[in-house]
Amino acid sequence: MSNDTSPVAALISTSDSADAWAAALKALEFPIPLEIWPNISDPARVAYAIVAKPPPGVLAGFPNLKATLSLWAGVDHVTIDPDWPAHLPLIRMVEDGMTAGMREFVLAQVLATHLQLPDFTRQQQVSHWDDHIRGDYGMEPLTDQRTVGMLGLGVLGSVSGKALALNGFKVMGWSRSAKTIDGIDCRHGAEGLNAVLAESEIVVNLLPSTPETANILNAETFARMPKGAWVINVARGEHVDDAALLAALDSGHLAGAVLDVFRTEPLPKENPYWTHPKVTVTPHIASTTRIRTGAPKIVANLLNLEAGEMPEGRFDVDRGY
Amino acid sequence: MSNDTSPVAALISTSDSADAWAAALKALEFPIPLEIWPNISDPARVAYAIVAKPPPGVLAGFPNLKATLSLWAGVDHVTIDPDWPAHLPLIRMVEDGMTAGMREFVLAQVLATHLQLPDFTRQQQVSHWDDHIRGDYGMEPLTDQRTVGMLGLGVLGSVSGKALALNGFKVMGWSRSAKTIDGIDCRHGAEGLNAVLAESEIVVNLLPSTPETANILNAETFARMPKGAWVINVARGEHVDDAALLAALDSGHLAGAVLDVFRTEPLPKENPYWTHPKVTVTPHIASTTRIRTGAPKIVANLLNLEAGEMPEGRFDVDRGY
Repeated sequence: MSNDTSPVAALISTSDSADAWAAALKALEFPIPLEIWPNISDPARVAYAIVAKPPPGVLAGFPNLKATLSLWAGVDHVTIDPDWPAHLPLIRMVEDGMTAGMREFVLAQVLATHLQLPDFTRQQQVSHWDDHIRGDYGMEPLTDQRTVGMLGLGVLGSVSGKALALNGFKVMGWSRSAKTIDGIDCRHGAEGLNAVLAESEIVVNLLPSTPETANILNAETFARMPKGAWVINVARGEHVDDAALLAALDSGHLAGAVLDVFRTEPLPKENPYWTHPKVTVTPHIASTTRIRTGAPKIVANLLNLEAGEMPEGRFDVDRGY
Repeated sequence: MSNDTSPVAALISTSDSADAWAAALKALEFPIPLEIWPNISDPARVAYAIVAKPPPGVLAGFPNLKATLSLWAGVDHVTIDPDWPAHLPLIRMVEDGMTAGMREFVLAQVLATHLQLPDFTRQQQVSHWDDHIRGDYGMEPLTDQRTVGMLGLGVLGSVSGKALALNGFKVMGWSRSAKTIDGIDCRHGAEGLNAVLAESEIVVNLLPSTPETANILNAETFARMPKGAWVINVARGEHVDDAALLAALDSGHLAGAVLDVFRTEPLPKENPYWTHPKVTVTPHIASTTRIRTGAPKIVANLLNLEAGEMPEGRFDVDRGY
């Protein structure tokens, strides 16, 4: 322990890109010294924690912490720690690379769903094509004949929704509070949710994970979607009542689901989603914070905090996101 | 046979959407009477033939034919008939619905390729995910780090290429003659083709099918693409040297192929593409002429012809498209 008491930033990452983040952050002009956990010279000097899956209890060990900066857009990897310093600012990562990646993944999956590409994949597996799986030849719907419902209109939801609209889809959006977004028919509140579900052939979930949104995709909300609708979940596994989703798929009410997130990750081998013929699964790869754009954002956020300004993306404990 | 000698238009379709086309055309205000083959009152009165897969010899039976209007964008279904009246105008279908459908399919398949969705599909089939199949977490490329090469810059190629550019991809394009298209780095000639192939991680083929473009995707052109490149063929099976493609996939030089068209369609059961682990096949469904937009286009083309004007899309026998 040195006698130097000036503040430092600590990078605390147990994720498998820890080395790349450390290298990228160290390569930037950092306003204060950066130390890589567990090599912290003096816990009392740590003013800022830059974190990806910090081990529970580590943050509580910094008595002079001023703020926690998440390397990820979601912060459940921080708040799962019962001892995380909830009275201090926790800053979600909002950066263009993560946003662009989500926009690309959502557009890819919505287009694939719209064009019924998973049905062609399944048919290839048995070396046989059925005729007219997209409707009669000459009558196949184009994007302007499809309504997509976007649940959640934060940065990821609104940018993804605008990309869908730009590519021709009719887009309805739903959020807790009223919003106005170019190209998206925005609704809010309980009535608004019902309206979006009733119109949407493809429902994309990009809601924050809060007690209020837990199990929001359930038997009742599935029943409000039109017969043959699809669900695409790129938010959190906690949003989905899994038994209800499987029942809605098996009854034929829902035509399919694309799931990137699950209650238990990685998805356990015995989980029925793996082999369900109407389900496409991916391993929570819809988007990640990109280091090339995220590292400069961390520096910018840290400079803001040092200047007494609150960066974009502060986690609100009461609101839950 | 009646004594009326005024001209009529004949709809000659052996495709499975014949009834829907007939109904849509009959519902429109046609400038001259429309008759549905084989119920033609007098072959001598047929001035215009509106065709989808006309049986060989039928067109030659109309001595006073002025023009043939294809219901499809490609006209090989007409020119395969050795007796088709090659001295008369043959008008390809150029209509917004077919174009939009192709734009959607190309964008969907390029995004899926970019995001390696076929790899995730294959992994789901064995209920196991390998880590980092899209690269290290935080380093996965975004669309602005991918170059797509568009071979063919007619209406379908240029509109599809512009959609890729709009969604962030770097797009290079190649055509026989020099072109300038916003958002596309256009090249032409033999040197231009080599430049496009050398830069493109994903090559999309939308060239016309002519003797010059036959087998243009061959061992030499595959070798010019970067290792790990993908090929997406939505034009004609004749563009691909199938043995060379399979060899390039098996050697590991090419990472995958998405094929919507084949030399023999439907794709024969024993064709190796069905079961090749690096190949995605679809049954020539990339796009179809949409009846809701194509039927009014037929009327517009017919009015143009009656007024002595040549509609967009005249087939050039010498050029081959």
